[in-house]
Amino acid sequence: MSKFWSPFVKELVPYVPGEQPKLAKLVKLNTNENPYGPSPEVVAAIQAELNDTLRLYPDPNADRLKQTIAEYHGVKTSQVFVGNGSDEVLAHAFHALFQHGKPLLFPDVTYSFYPVYCGLYGIEFEALPLDEQFQIRVEDYARRNGGIIFPNPNAPTGCLLPLEAIERLLQASPDSVVLVDEAYVDFGGETAISLVNRYPNLLVAQTLSKSRSLAGLRVGFAVGHEDLIEALERVKNSFNSYPLDRLALAGAVASFEDQAYFEQTCNAVIHSREKLVAELKTLGFDVLPSAANFIFARHPQRDGAELAAALREEGVIVRHFKQQRINQFLRISIGTEEQNQALLDALRLKL
Amino acid sequence: MSKFWSPFVKELVPYVPGEQPKLAKLVKLNTNENPYGPSPEVVAAIQAELNDTLRLYPDPNADRLKQTIAEYHGVKTSQVFVGNGSDEVLAHAFHALFQHGKPLLFPDVTYSFYPVYCGLYGIEFEALPLDEQFQIRVEDYARRNGGIIFPNPNAPTGCLLPLEAIERLLQASPDSVVLVDEAYVDFGGETAISLVNRYPNLLVAQTLSKSRSLAGLRVGFAVGHEDLIEALERVKNSFNSYPLDRLALAGAVASFEDQAYFEQTCNAVIHSREKLVAELKTLGFDVLPSAANFIFARHPQRDGAELAAALREEGVIVRHFKQQRINQFLRISIGTEEQNQALLDALRLKL
Repeated sequence: MSKFWSPFVKELVPYVPGEQPKLAKLVKLNTNENPYGPSPEVVAAIQAELNDTLRLYPDPNADRLKQTIAEYHGVKTSQVFVGNGSDEVLAHAFHALFQHGKPLLFPDVTYSFYPVYCGLYGIEFEALPLDEQFQIRVEDYARRNGGIIFPNPNAPTGCLLPLEAIERLLQASPDSVVLVDEAYVDFGGETAISLVNRYPNLLVAQTLSKSRSLAGLRVGFAVGHEDLIEALERVKNSFNSYPLDRLALAGAVASFEDQAYFEQTCNAVIHSREKLVAELKTLGFDVLPSAANFIFARHPQRDGAELAAALREEGVIVRHFKQQRINQFLRISIGTEEQNQALLDALRLKL
Repeated sequence: MSKFWSPFVKELVPYVPGEQPKLAKLVKLNTNENPYGPSPEVVAAIQAELNDTLRLYPDPNADRLKQTIAEYHGVKTSQVFVGNGSDEVLAHAFHALFQHGKPLLFPDVTYSFYPVYCGLYGIEFEALPLDEQFQIRVEDYARRNGGIIFPNPNAPTGCLLPLEAIERLLQASPDSVVLVDEAYVDFGGETAISLVNRYPNLLVAQTLSKSRSLAGLRVGFAVGHEDLIEALERVKNSFNSYPLDRLALAGAVASFEDQAYFEQTCNAVIHSREKLVAELKTLGFDVLPSAANFIFARHPQRDGAELAAALREEGVIVRHFKQQRINQFLRISIGTEEQNQALLDALRLKL
């Protein structure tokens, strides 16, 4: 602690992202990246923008990208907010929409960035336990709150909450913003964007990092009522006028224009997931039902941390969390068929 | 105002960036971009990174870029912080280092984003008047404060504060962070980075947007004592793990590796600036002494707003600020020789 720090900095417990190893030889199944590259149209669009115009600022309002997303999802451009990855979008949403002197609610097992944002912006929170099957109990959220947030499908469990349950949540807290974080929705979920015109308290966040294979480009967005979007724009325009660079804007637009590639790669991941789940079950794993591009699994006879370390010895990295309720689980990103096979081979050696 | 907004959002007055016109035909001298494109090495480095690895997250710590900047400026890697443009770096610095319940000090005529950040983070401030020649009066800053920030050269005046004056500022406020915002320093200033190892309260911010022709890529950085950098890292890692995308990281590193191009383009801008200043003076303009890639000038016989509008009719856009003390001035970015000539031609028509 330095005397120069703003007082809250001392108490901050930053988020710890999954390892990005600098050795390329590892089978990397630890950070939920897509095993397939982005659409060739994305690469071509960035290529076309890679020239002397880099000397110029990007469009601060990202109009073309917002229009593209609005058309894609059937909403108005003024209902779309974009940011430098969905983490930045979430950060602005916590700041702009969750400071109400009442606790923000989220599941006890969820994306571990949520309590970090609360620390950053001085927001009180309550972590509500998932049930025994690691499912969200909607009725628990019908209590005093300054907002509600959860990923759907949830992370790191992969479990999906159906839209009718989300509607019950929205109806029970009409004076609070409900933020549905759909980072993984394209791998088997149904987006709640279809509900935004009926629920002015609903904000839906998505990212291009997973289903659009662009983790390296940093683009995320949110869709909701214009009033919610205006709050995000005010905060964004008081923080950084140009969060998306020219290349990211061009690549993101192109991604939405290649629907065939998007569907093909999502379907390939879903197909591989189902195959991998079946194989892991034959090896004795308990696997939670996943609608994401990862699975959450434990082996009744093997300690989670030990198994993660053993896999790493074989050159396969998966994510292990030390948090109490889930410390026997491994979160395994779905890889290519070859990567999944390498995982299974390593497990057969180590089990 | 919506009931869903955090209360502070209602009071926010966001920053308004200079116009980014979508018509390419304008002579754009309004947002201090470099008239020359980035180094060909930058384009080549991004090209080499433009492939399927976009599916992977970038290095969250940007180690290679930090090392490159550290070597370039002769400091330790742990003394370097990087962000998504220097605006993001400044935002984190306001949040992490300026919340002390005492007023932040900055000049009355300066970068208009500073009071916006104060609104975003609830920081009280005092704007201290520049003297009659639009120079910072160092002695005015020797008063109770929770931090000091100013651009050097100052914006939009272009005026430079010498290092010995900065040392006096640092010595007068040893318990406060002094943030020197050197967005324009490469066009004739001397960086205060040489002082960071002697003053633990000094933080220096720079950007690749201007002198390195990369406004479109969004990369900025700060250099200071490790304690200050740690505060920035804590806030950054509680906000967004990966603010710099893979292409921006690659391009930024390459920019520091092409010193010859950097010097050549900076010198060209400086040369054109001196020529333009001389020409404007022959047209009757008062021009403040500039060490930046822009000049701040007024014509004794012509209203500033009217003159800006008249130039726009001729297809030349410059920046005009409505703020009281400076509303007779135009801020004119230095363009290519051809662009500067177009400006002079338009002025000769309109004066």
